[in-house]
Amino acid sequence: MTGQRTRVVVVGADAGGMSAAHQALRTARLRGRELAITVLDRGTHTSYSACGIPYWMAGDLDAGDDLVARTADQHREAGIDLRMGTEVVAADLAARTVTTDSGEVVDYDELVVATGSPAVMPDWALRPDGTAYDGVGAVKTLDDGSAWAGRFAAAGEGARVVIVGAGYIGVEVAEAALRRGFRVTVLTRGRGMSMLEDEMAERVNAAMREAGAEVVLGAEVTGLDTDGDRVTGVHWDGGSRKADLVVVAIGVRPATAFLEGTGIELADNGALRPDPHGRVADHVWAAGDCCEVRRRIDGEWVFRPLGTHANKHGRALGDSLAGGTLSFPGMVDTAITRFSVGEVHLEIARTGLSRKDAEAAGHDPLALVTEGTTASGYMPEAEPIALWVMADRTTRRLLGVQVLGGHGAGKRIDAAAAVLWADGTVDDLAWMDLAYAPPFATAWEVLQVAARRVAERL
Amino acid sequence: MTGQRTRVVVVGADAGGMSAAHQALRTARLRGRELAITVLDRGTHTSYSACGIPYWMAGDLDAGDDLVARTADQHREAGIDLRMGTEVVAADLAARTVTTDSGEVVDYDELVVATGSPAVMPDWALRPDGTAYDGVGAVKTLDDGSAWAGRFAAAGEGARVVIVGAGYIGVEVAEAALRRGFRVTVLTRGRGMSMLEDEMAERVNAAMREAGAEVVLGAEVTGLDTDGDRVTGVHWDGGSRKADLVVVAIGVRPATAFLEGTGIELADNGALRPDPHGRVADHVWAAGDCCEVRRRIDGEWVFRPLGTHANKHGRALGDSLAGGTLSFPGMVDTAITRFSVGEVHLEIARTGLSRKDAEAAGHDPLALVTEGTTASGYMPEAEPIALWVMADRTTRRLLGVQVLGGHGAGKRIDAAAAVLWADGTVDDLAWMDLAYAPPFATAWEVLQVAARRVAERL
Repeated sequence: MTGQRTRVVVVGADAGGMSAAHQALRTARLRGRELAITVLDRGTHTSYSACGIPYWMAGDLDAGDDLVARTADQHREAGIDLRMGTEVVAADLAARTVTTDSGEVVDYDELVVATGSPAVMPDWALRPDGTAYDGVGAVKTLDDGSAWAGRFAAAGEGARVVIVGAGYIGVEVAEAALRRGFRVTVLTRGRGMSMLEDEMAERVNAAMREAGAEVVLGAEVTGLDTDGDRVTGVHWDGGSRKADLVVVAIGVRPATAFLEGTGIELADNGALRPDPHGRVADHVWAAGDCCEVRRRIDGEWVFRPLGTHANKHGRALGDSLAGGTLSFPGMVDTAITRFSVGEVHLEIARTGLSRKDAEAAGHDPLALVTEGTTASGYMPEAEPIALWVMADRTTRRLLGVQVLGGHGAGKRIDAAAAVLWADGTVDDLAWMDLAYAPPFATAWEVLQVAARRVAERL
Repeated sequence: MTGQRTRVVVVGADAGGMSAAHQALRTARLRGRELAITVLDRGTHTSYSACGIPYWMAGDLDAGDDLVARTADQHREAGIDLRMGTEVVAADLAARTVTTDSGEVVDYDELVVATGSPAVMPDWALRPDGTAYDGVGAVKTLDDGSAWAGRFAAAGEGARVVIVGAGYIGVEVAEAALRRGFRVTVLTRGRGMSMLEDEMAERVNAAMREAGAEVVLGAEVTGLDTDGDRVTGVHWDGGSRKADLVVVAIGVRPATAFLEGTGIELADNGALRPDPHGRVADHVWAAGDCCEVRRRIDGEWVFRPLGTHANKHGRALGDSLAGGTLSFPGMVDTAITRFSVGEVHLEIARTGLSRKDAEAAGHDPLALVTEGTTASGYMPEAEPIALWVMADRTTRRLLGVQVLGGHGAGKRIDAAAAVLWADGTVDDLAWMDLAYAPPFATAWEVLQVAARRVAERL
């Protein structure tokens, strides 16, 4: 019987890869198939929540272990041959082998690529030997998290922290640093939070400033000051600041270099584009942050390295690989974060297309910003909320929603995402049956007020 | 020109009636029509939030004025002839007149019935003259609210409050009374919270008990003890308690007696059943709490006197009456409330069918309760949440969702309501793109974990 077991090699032991591995085992068991699953990962930790690292830095968590959903040993107990510290450096699709950094050649019947997307480290952050200067780092791996949690715990109140990048991670780290009592400067090449429309992004910058951060827009970092090994300052075109710590949060890039020359098609940034079952080539599959995902609204491939997509995609892949039929039905570009420091609490969420996306897809979009409250105005729970709602003038189809506001604002995005999922109209959003009671909403739920205002102007 | 103005008479000056009146004026203006709108209301206050009264009782609001969305004068400034303290006692559809309690006969071209649903007061609550004993009352009108806010503010800590009824109002008043430091007994004929499944309702009872309330199930009140005018105790089949105050929250009943004999069809409880534009007969319209509403999932008429339906229904009616095309597209039976006393914070929400509804509609339902957390387990924001999800075994259609849990649990119902609105499946709910970040959700959003568990068992 052993000879008939399908040898599955998974490269990468985080959300996409391990979801795939466990679902494959589950489906195989149900279908009476036998799989031998080997997982190779170049790192030291499996299945951890990278999203939780900023809260570890803030001091919300006692230990990084809390971020590990499943340890290596737990995966092994489930019957997975897991090898950490093992990087795959080449693949031969014809021979069905991968080669590790130690020169070992591993045979596979099915190959699953789930290598994720490491943080981009610019040249200015690196010493001549290619390692980052002391006090400088990204926020991506659990080892990064451990380093940052240590640096933040050790730094005294008033330490100078420069954060390069004002996307989700930049904003979350700004929260963490301000909550620690540090002096914070956020530098961004653009105008911050590129996943929001201009008029919404500027409110995020305003919140960071209100909480005491300096936010510099249009700032391209040109270099660091160092005392040799350790950072002491940051320069950009137009200014400079002294710095004890520099957080690099300028993006990530798929770890797919080992696939170059295999004939597998890669997007410009190196991302894979698997089909809904996870296939990228004969006997080759991919899931997670090394992939682009299909956006249902306009059918575009977009790079959104998020755990939610990785988990779902991995599950569909694992099931399909083991003979099942589950498929990943795409996404509608939903995301959420927050900036919360003392009295300044801003929940930030988006779903659907940007105005630029919508125009590129041939829509004739109308978008409005509507202000309201999260609860009935007379309740102590009421906090301000602003919603950007966009719909197509001709088809009335809902195209995108963005939300900024106090407690309870952010997860309102889910109702809008559900309308987008069903290809609904702005009228659906305006008239559907959403929940109201004074502590939770206004009698006309603010999401519906915002939709109605757009509907009336189409 | 005045002779050509359409004379609209609206009976009832709360959400349904005033939404209709204002929308009619808006639409008429856009379409160049002329309306003369007269509103007759037997009460003393317009357009107030009855839902806010329990929070007024709790002390969250300084004044009842906060509950008034628009005063009588504000309506008049908009051009509406509003007559308060004027009860309509008869209607003559052939003559197109209504008669008021002072004997005045008012002509109309179009009649809008928006009389709402007064609270049911049982005989045991009433003195021989038909008024309630001192210390006894319902929680419905702004005058009720004013009386209760006064009684609650005047009662000393430890006052004995008996609440009869454990629906939304009963639970909300229990919160208010416990937050005031009163000794609270909740009596219910059934097992409490009839809009929830048994296994969910009992958690609400458990929360009330945890916060110090006595909750007595299966208790039919048989009478009061009084010192003549004032209540001193409550008896039920099986027990009795001393009582300083007795809150009657056993339901409401449409105020449609004046339509008897007109030929307009009324449901068993007296409710009207208007079409999506609000019509109930030639030149007669109805909206708001005096109506039943159509539930989209099974097409049934149900009595759900909620402000959300009243507002939407009134708007569609007003637009249609003035020549527009807006229609009320029905509801999916969404509702929300909470029970929040000190450390005990339970958000309570539901949407869709009950198991009983589903079976009556010919479905083959499967339902499961799933436990999880509102945020990632390692975050300080994480609180327990329990979800009941029901789907049809054959069609996989989502049929109903109920949610109980900590901060952030309740409004999760909106995403489920959106799926029901679009006739979606449990797979849609399981795979759609809902928002995740550690302070807001688990990496597999708990609503989707719950849906997936049901999907896997269909």
